[in-house]
Amino acid sequence: MSDLTDRLAEGLPAGALVVDPDVTAAYRYDMAGFCEAGAPAVVVFPETVEQVQHIMRTATELRVPVVPQGARTGLSGGANAVDDCIVLSMVKMNRILELDPVNRIAVVEPGVVNAELSRAAGKLGLTYPPDPSSWESCTIGGNIGTGAGGLCCVKYGVTSEYVLGLDVVLADGRLLSTGRRTAKGVAGYDLTRLLVGSEGTLGVVVRAVVALRPAPAPQLALAAEFPSTDAACAAVCEVMARGFTPSLMELMDTVTVRAVNDLAQMGLPESTQALLLVAFDGPHPAAELAAVGELCLAAGATEVVPAEDQAESEMLLQARRLSLTALDRLGTTMIDDVAVPRSRMAEMLSGVAAIAERCDLTIGVVCHAGDGNTHPIVIFDADDPEQAARAKQSFDEIMGLGLELGGTITGEHGVGLLKRDWLERELGPVAVELQRQLKSVFDPLGILNPGKAV
Amino acid sequence: MSDLTDRLAEGLPAGALVVDPDVTAAYRYDMAGFCEAGAPAVVVFPETVEQVQHIMRTATELRVPVVPQGARTGLSGGANAVDDCIVLSMVKMNRILELDPVNRIAVVEPGVVNAELSRAAGKLGLTYPPDPSSWESCTIGGNIGTGAGGLCCVKYGVTSEYVLGLDVVLADGRLLSTGRRTAKGVAGYDLTRLLVGSEGTLGVVVRAVVALRPAPAPQLALAAEFPSTDAACAAVCEVMARGFTPSLMELMDTVTVRAVNDLAQMGLPESTQALLLVAFDGPHPAAELAAVGELCLAAGATEVVPAEDQAESEMLLQARRLSLTALDRLGTTMIDDVAVPRSRMAEMLSGVAAIAERCDLTIGVVCHAGDGNTHPIVIFDADDPEQAARAKQSFDEIMGLGLELGGTITGEHGVGLLKRDWLERELGPVAVELQRQLKSVFDPLGILNPGKAV
Repeated sequence: MSDLTDRLAEGLPAGALVVDPDVTAAYRYDMAGFCEAGAPAVVVFPETVEQVQHIMRTATELRVPVVPQGARTGLSGGANAVDDCIVLSMVKMNRILELDPVNRIAVVEPGVVNAELSRAAGKLGLTYPPDPSSWESCTIGGNIGTGAGGLCCVKYGVTSEYVLGLDVVLADGRLLSTGRRTAKGVAGYDLTRLLVGSEGTLGVVVRAVVALRPAPAPQLALAAEFPSTDAACAAVCEVMARGFTPSLMELMDTVTVRAVNDLAQMGLPESTQALLLVAFDGPHPAAELAAVGELCLAAGATEVVPAEDQAESEMLLQARRLSLTALDRLGTTMIDDVAVPRSRMAEMLSGVAAIAERCDLTIGVVCHAGDGNTHPIVIFDADDPEQAARAKQSFDEIMGLGLELGGTITGEHGVGLLKRDWLERELGPVAVELQRQLKSVFDPLGILNPGKAV
Repeated sequence: MSDLTDRLAEGLPAGALVVDPDVTAAYRYDMAGFCEAGAPAVVVFPETVEQVQHIMRTATELRVPVVPQGARTGLSGGANAVDDCIVLSMVKMNRILELDPVNRIAVVEPGVVNAELSRAAGKLGLTYPPDPSSWESCTIGGNIGTGAGGLCCVKYGVTSEYVLGLDVVLADGRLLSTGRRTAKGVAGYDLTRLLVGSEGTLGVVVRAVVALRPAPAPQLALAAEFPSTDAACAAVCEVMARGFTPSLMELMDTVTVRAVNDLAQMGLPESTQALLLVAFDGPHPAAELAAVGELCLAAGATEVVPAEDQAESEMLLQARRLSLTALDRLGTTMIDDVAVPRSRMAEMLSGVAAIAERCDLTIGVVCHAGDGNTHPIVIFDADDPEQAARAKQSFDEIMGLGLELGGTITGEHGVGLLKRDWLERELGPVAVELQRQLKSVFDPLGILNPGKAV
């Protein structure tokens, strides 16, 4: 064994350290298969804070890069390995340490799976709202690393609004505690929120205090079919301008509708250019859906189908949930994550259609429409280098369009490797310089997830 | 004129620069009269971003400290002048630049008064929720500097949850743009939230994009009288554990109740040891109040008075609104701001009563009870040095108790000068060192609000 693995083994239990290249190779990638990934020297699975501190102290001493990983469901390569690194998998630190209904908080280790926290909280009448599509497998630590969003964000907000305090092992092995267990607190700079979304480049989260909420009533949904994305986006704007607060507002374009039909024979009308799903979880969802249905018809919807009950709602929402699986069957996919002001979403969608036509590619789009957060999904043949180049070109054009429309290159997936080259275009040189200086404060040797995010 | 004022005058219009010591003396203090304050060399009132950049460039070149100020309603000395500084008053940059109902955002200059933004948003059916007690005079820039809270936070959260993006002039005059105009966004480290609550020590906010919400229905309140603070706190815990989300939940102790009675003859029963005010602004406030009233009675309330209508609600809430004014009449006051987990609030209140007895002082307490955010108000005779020393002693003991109970020394007022010595006790040496390093990244010469916060 190498000096590195010897040193790591001194502070880790048997089985917490894997060097077999056949096994470590499985930890090279998250879900962004298109980004480069190196070959790790070792994968470690600590179970205690002290073990994480030992790993980071060793890494600092030997100047070895460390790539923290959760469930590797990320979509931007932020958890991809670099050559000769320590992959620091947090999945074995997966205990829910506290659930506190009076203070409406949970204290969790980073490897807790999002859905497990939601289910445990649910038994106490509470919920942990952020719900990325991968919620059945993604971890709270990964959610914190990326600042994850989800379908509920239009009403309930994103991860950063639910993280109250963190225990973090720094690059040199010191333990930092940030934030609080209280509902409010403003003592010192908000290091907690600086760490949320920092993609493992500033420290390794080993414990989190997160806010819970009372579990909402089951949501009731409607589906509205539109003859154009413009009309659907106009309906979205009208719903928000009239002061409604849906618990979900999702949009699927015609490419996605057809793909879902092909996969699941859902009988969605294929002439539909945009399918809008809207749900409410307040005390009078049927009344709110009726009012929103009227707004959709006024905006040009050709049909509005309100669910009668929760089972029907689930069937409608199933179309949205199957979208990525359905599009994945059409070829290799690159999923973009551009958020724009919702008033500009119509321009975003028509612009993406124009890019698809110009690049001669199929691009399906699903949107967290209430947030203006679009996911254009570029479909191509990865074995055809010329087509892959066009796919990359269209992906970049989509980000450029998003910025032109006052948006951001990433609403909820993070920068990772995938969008690193675009970050400065969005942030400008002053912000980028500050970001790099902040990185140096936390990680002067540059060993934490090098090359990611900033 | 000095070199400093000559140089400042080169980039400022006539009248934007004041050197008359009789006038500048009025800008020495915020509302924390007990903290030290220096004599400013000059007070400037810029009206444009470029003027602020000119001021900061000049300050950097001449190494002159700069103290940013809003309406100076702060309670921790964070805006107090230091000797020979430039006081940078942002009150003339007070335009609401955009109000956008579709995207539910406002773009404002920092000198906009909180209540003016709320009223302007209200005309469009929207609201800006954070509502510090000083909302009729405090500015959005000041709210951002302190991370201000308010009465609505138990349901609607604090300032940091409403700030989406900032334009900030850095210490050297460079202009930094952070964040976004979109509902979601995770590109790069969250500099926006790092700046919120940084008390003017990292940069000068010159523009803010803030989130608005649909205006809620008028709230309906009840008042419940308790024979002990323990019983009132038990009711608070029960309300939260049962999943209610009141729009306001405030607690006044017997000292405060008596003071308000003396001021306004409100006829509150003086035997009451704690008065709890609870309000709801959802679709069925009366039903929620009825249920909460039952919980209060079960917890030991001697009387529950639900308002029949909005006018009655306002009368009940008036008791809370008059609290500080009423306590101010009893002597000089020092207002503390300790937040604890709400499950520990009963211990906090009995501990404060014990401290008052031990120090032989009157201490009134009002709490944002739903948040566990207590404001013990120490009353003393400032002309009696021995009593003033006991007041300071009790103030410190209150903070110590808050930390013992898992709380924070400041829920919403900020550290400023008042609590600077306590910050390390709360944060620990690792966090404090990082905070100081972050400060150095933004302000290597240490000219921005020196000696405050960190």
